[in-house]
Amino acid sequence: MADLVRIVVDAMGGDNAPVEPIKGAVDAVKERKDIKVILVGVEDIIKKELAKYPDYPKEQIEILNATEIIETAEPPVFAVRKKKDSSIVKGLNLVRHQEADAFVSSGSTGAVLVGGQILVGRSKGVERPPLAPLIPTAKGVSLLIDCGANVDARPSHLVQFAKMGSIYMEHIVGVKNPRVAIVNNGAEEEKGNALVKETFPLLKACEDINFIGSIEARDIPAGYADVIVCEAFVGNVILKLYEGVGSTLVSKIKAGMMTNLKTKIGALLVKPALKETLKTFDASEHGGAPLLGLKGLVVKTHGSAVAVEIKNAIFQCVQFKQNGINEKIAERIQKAKTDEAKQGE
Amino acid sequence: MADLVRIVVDAMGGDNAPVEPIKGAVDAVKERKDIKVILVGVEDIIKKELAKYPDYPKEQIEILNATEIIETAEPPVFAVRKKKDSSIVKGLNLVRHQEADAFVSSGSTGAVLVGGQILVGRSKGVERPPLAPLIPTAKGVSLLIDCGANVDARPSHLVQFAKMGSIYMEHIVGVKNPRVAIVNNGAEEEKGNALVKETFPLLKACEDINFIGSIEARDIPAGYADVIVCEAFVGNVILKLYEGVGSTLVSKIKAGMMTNLKTKIGALLVKPALKETLKTFDASEHGGAPLLGLKGLVVKTHGSAVAVEIKNAIFQCVQFKQNGINEKIAERIQKAKTDEAKQGE
Repeated sequence: MADLVRIVVDAMGGDNAPVEPIKGAVDAVKERKDIKVILVGVEDIIKKELAKYPDYPKEQIEILNATEIIETAEPPVFAVRKKKDSSIVKGLNLVRHQEADAFVSSGSTGAVLVGGQILVGRSKGVERPPLAPLIPTAKGVSLLIDCGANVDARPSHLVQFAKMGSIYMEHIVGVKNPRVAIVNNGAEEEKGNALVKETFPLLKACEDINFIGSIEARDIPAGYADVIVCEAFVGNVILKLYEGVGSTLVSKIKAGMMTNLKTKIGALLVKPALKETLKTFDASEHGGAPLLGLKGLVVKTHGSAVAVEIKNAIFQCVQFKQNGINEKIAERIQKAKTDEAKQGE
Repeated sequence: MADLVRIVVDAMGGDNAPVEPIKGAVDAVKERKDIKVILVGVEDIIKKELAKYPDYPKEQIEILNATEIIETAEPPVFAVRKKKDSSIVKGLNLVRHQEADAFVSSGSTGAVLVGGQILVGRSKGVERPPLAPLIPTAKGVSLLIDCGANVDARPSHLVQFAKMGSIYMEHIVGVKNPRVAIVNNGAEEEKGNALVKETFPLLKACEDINFIGSIEARDIPAGYADVIVCEAFVGNVILKLYEGVGSTLVSKIKAGMMTNLKTKIGALLVKPALKETLKTFDASEHGGAPLLGLKGLVVKTHGSAVAVEIKNAIFQCVQFKQNGINEKIAERIQKAKTDEAKQGE
């Protein structure tokens, strides 16, 4: 059983806990033999919920009792330090002590980010671990890196994000030679804030990424680049505005279709196709966002994630582990450090 | 004729020049007696184009010859300095010398921003002039301030943006006591990058604005605030992503409706309503963006603006002038400076 991938799932995290995370775990072990899921949370609640599923390989699911829950509104640093018996802290500690390979949670983004960094720890040489969600585009998906806690990042951080993002897109999403671009306020050479102007030549000098230059926000949804590099404040704005514009536009369209009998009949006919289209363009539909550059894997799923997303995040962890993504990242970061040191000599 | 508002229109700027700017000017003078439009650009071209409209009050349109054109791709600072006989430089100089009240252009955003600042000049006490487009929301429009050239702004700049934006929304758009919010990566107190953390308490202390706190990008399209304050890099990302997500989503929806005969029939029935809906949610439909805090008014219209948008921008200038917005801004900024000085005593 050496190849068994062990994934901790936060049974208490997110709007639909415990029902959906637990259903996701059950569905996952029903589909794959090579995983073990450890459900972390209040034992009684988990047991009661699991009892609803008589028919699953019981040896593939374990329970780890955690009596506390970190709420979304709690200040993350304080919560992680104080609630030692919370599902997030106990789950991350399993990864820290290598008793699990990955941790999946739909709970407090702040607590997962802070906890991932403090408890699991950064891979050697990684300066800041970025949170990197996949966002939908006209052509498929792009990786938006960073949407995490590292606001006011430095150029060297962004260079590492570009490298880590490239590895992820190539080996997990399967994009050969992924195009890397930095978010900018224009395509012209003189554009950019201080951070972008300083980072641009550093990215241009990287031989291990396919850097294509600046990307304006307008071109992100069109899919002009595979890895979209930015610091976390801008990344957050992009991710949240994707959701905001999408949902406002969709409700406007729906309302527009209800104006008279003719449009109502039309709406009935286009509804299924429309629903399908909108699903492919929903930022929350594209699995969990990995927190890259840590010693283990931490995946943040959307707060409103349902069973299928949890299951997909679990499978994503398996792929991550089996492809040795962490080893590849560590190797690439180390090589960059060595090259830099050589050039400095 | 003391109340005549004199507006310079760049006849050479934008994708649809000279046809659309000139048509916009003609339509404007046909509708209002209290304006004079000065068309600036290559005289022969303007004359030839104007000849197509035999029937308009000729005394309300003048031509100012300008032999050069600043292209969108030219580095703005260099272009403004070098092309003294361009439509942008000559038009802005009319405003500088108070021979015109306002300048409207669909040309190079960079050149208009740089030229506005250098040639027209800032109002006394204004640290940076912000470019402030109106963006569509579920409830109407919000003012996004700043989308201009001031990347890496300082907290004091953002405070001035909030004040100027409030005056504009109240007196031009007609929103009583407009809600002001700062773009942030979360609603919690501890969120924000260095700039936002430093600006937040300053905005909170302003007694002359209705500051409601942080706004996450997700809530911008929903219309949670009337004045959206941010520095220009983030403002540019928001404005461009609005366009990008909107247009990608719309083409996906259109394609989705063409999948089979049933959806095609449905599409025919909903098309007019859909078109109307999308029009109200098009960032480019909401007139020109003013460059606030200058000694005169400078309005940047979308590069693809057509006659009706130029006409609306001209009327916007009239309203701006007649409502004494510049005087109101100067007064408010001066008052803040005086109050500060008093507190410092």
